[in-house]
Amino acid sequence: MKTVIVGVGLIGGSMAIDLKKAGIATRVTGVEINDEHAERALKLGLVDEIAPLESAVAGAELVITAIPVNAIRSVLVIILNNINDNAVVVDTGSTKSMICKAIETHPRRAQFVAAHPIAGTENSGPDAAFAGLFIHKTNIICEAEKSSAKARETAERIFEALQMRTIFMEPVEHDKHVAYVSHLSHVSSFLLGQTVLDIEKDEKNIFNLAGSGFASTVRLAKSSPEMWAPIFEQNAEYLSQALLEYIMHLQRFQYHLMKRDVAELYRIMKDANRIREVLDGIEHKQKPKQLIEK
Amino acid sequence: MKTVIVGVGLIGGSMAIDLKKAGIATRVTGVEINDEHAERALKLGLVDEIAPLESAVAGAELVITAIPVNAIRSVLVIILNNINDNAVVVDTGSTKSMICKAIETHPRRAQFVAAHPIAGTENSGPDAAFAGLFIHKTNIICEAEKSSAKARETAERIFEALQMRTIFMEPVEHDKHVAYVSHLSHVSSFLLGQTVLDIEKDEKNIFNLAGSGFASTVRLAKSSPEMWAPIFEQNAEYLSQALLEYIMHLQRFQYHLMKRDVAELYRIMKDANRIREVLDGIEHKQKPKQLIEK
Repeated sequence: MKTVIVGVGLIGGSMAIDLKKAGIATRVTGVEINDEHAERALKLGLVDEIAPLESAVAGAELVITAIPVNAIRSVLVIILNNINDNAVVVDTGSTKSMICKAIETHPRRAQFVAAHPIAGTENSGPDAAFAGLFIHKTNIICEAEKSSAKARETAERIFEALQMRTIFMEPVEHDKHVAYVSHLSHVSSFLLGQTVLDIEKDEKNIFNLAGSGFASTVRLAKSSPEMWAPIFEQNAEYLSQALLEYIMHLQRFQYHLMKRDVAELYRIMKDANRIREVLDGIEHKQKPKQLIEK
Repeated sequence: MKTVIVGVGLIGGSMAIDLKKAGIATRVTGVEINDEHAERALKLGLVDEIAPLESAVAGAELVITAIPVNAIRSVLVIILNNINDNAVVVDTGSTKSMICKAIETHPRRAQFVAAHPIAGTENSGPDAAFAGLFIHKTNIICEAEKSSAKARETAERIFEALQMRTIFMEPVEHDKHVAYVSHLSHVSSFLLGQTVLDIEKDEKNIFNLAGSGFASTVRLAKSSPEMWAPIFEQNAEYLSQALLEYIMHLQRFQYHLMKRDVAELYRIMKDANRIREVLDGIEHKQKPKQLIEK
């Protein structure tokens, strides 16, 4: 398929690599507003050419958007206005309600698949792209019933080629759950990083005292604000609710800490330990099948 | 040296392996109140024998304690009361003020070295022990001037053999900095785990939606409450201060989120991004020297 990737960063670039390898993308055209990224994507061989949005999508069989969620809404409309009748459009945004709403009455709605492949690293841009980013991760498709059979089949081929497992959710349900399981951990990490930087003005102390635990907890604070600020804005209601609950838990812990109520601190931590099973399950899920079956 | 390891878990067990390998510990006697752990430590070959505290330390040249910080104070006094004049005692606790205070007037104070090798994983017990845990990590020694030259030299030999870099701090300064850089990240992770478990009652959603980012941020929530509750209690003042600042940052973020002040959210995240340099520095520090110099 003649494929257009709109936004050739970590997600778009990694998709380009894997879809070309799988033989799904025969020729990849990149659309990229950042000239430096466009040049790097060409140089790295992520895309065969760079072209402006309208002309690129006009001849495409498959269009994938991998751009910040605040840009998707308007870009999607331009794409749907310019594609031909056989093209399929798939987005990869981390919020889904606003995006689905933006194109809900568009005459070409059926050519669109609202997807969220849950994968990424704390790095961004074309240089961060790599083969295999999506392997054994989860992909979510929203409002599948509003996509045509052809569009659904194309999306299925794509996500199978990326070796992802697809599940189906409604946009509101999607946004609510990712607020807790993904967006909240980004906020907690960003602000942990900021708190520590704030206090440890002499950054040497962080260097000296930080163990691998700190590094792991604060890793997401390296993430791109360009990408995350719009996600947080679009998911503000659910994220805010998640954040308030997190703050409430922290305050309660601080209260017991000040009371030196060690038994209660212990109980809270023991309760949180249940996350071990969840994490073991995630690791297990992400192992190649042959390893699991051994 | 005839070595006694009091507490043969992750830290004590890993030290036993490395100190034996380095030829520093000729015979290792384990002291362990958990019978199951004692048996595992013997079976895994971490220790040559298990013995009761008093008799074990009586004949020892080197005693290392690696037990929860609430137990160290009384155990240290028993150890100092029972060792001979040439023995050296090193502790590895994550808080230092209370421990140093507890033995400050003990006649054998000079035989003791207050250390905190900053290393560990989210796992605990003898089965979690492994060779090389301490390589290229930081060790902190407090009140070095209160230890005898012999005790300091012995400690130096130990931490060099473990391939650690030792820095020196006063106990209060130590406790304050580790509150921010280590203890706070544990609390943030424990309560993130609890918040998400609380909401996602149907744990399947966490399985499905959690990416590697969530797993990384919440990893420390798997840590042992037996070990961490006493650390938090002993460092309650500084940890509470760190926690209140963290909560303040989170609340401010939530306020800007509700106001949809994306520019401010962006600014906060951009600011937190400075942690990247710190983390790159930590990774760099922990690489073997030959890799760094290339």
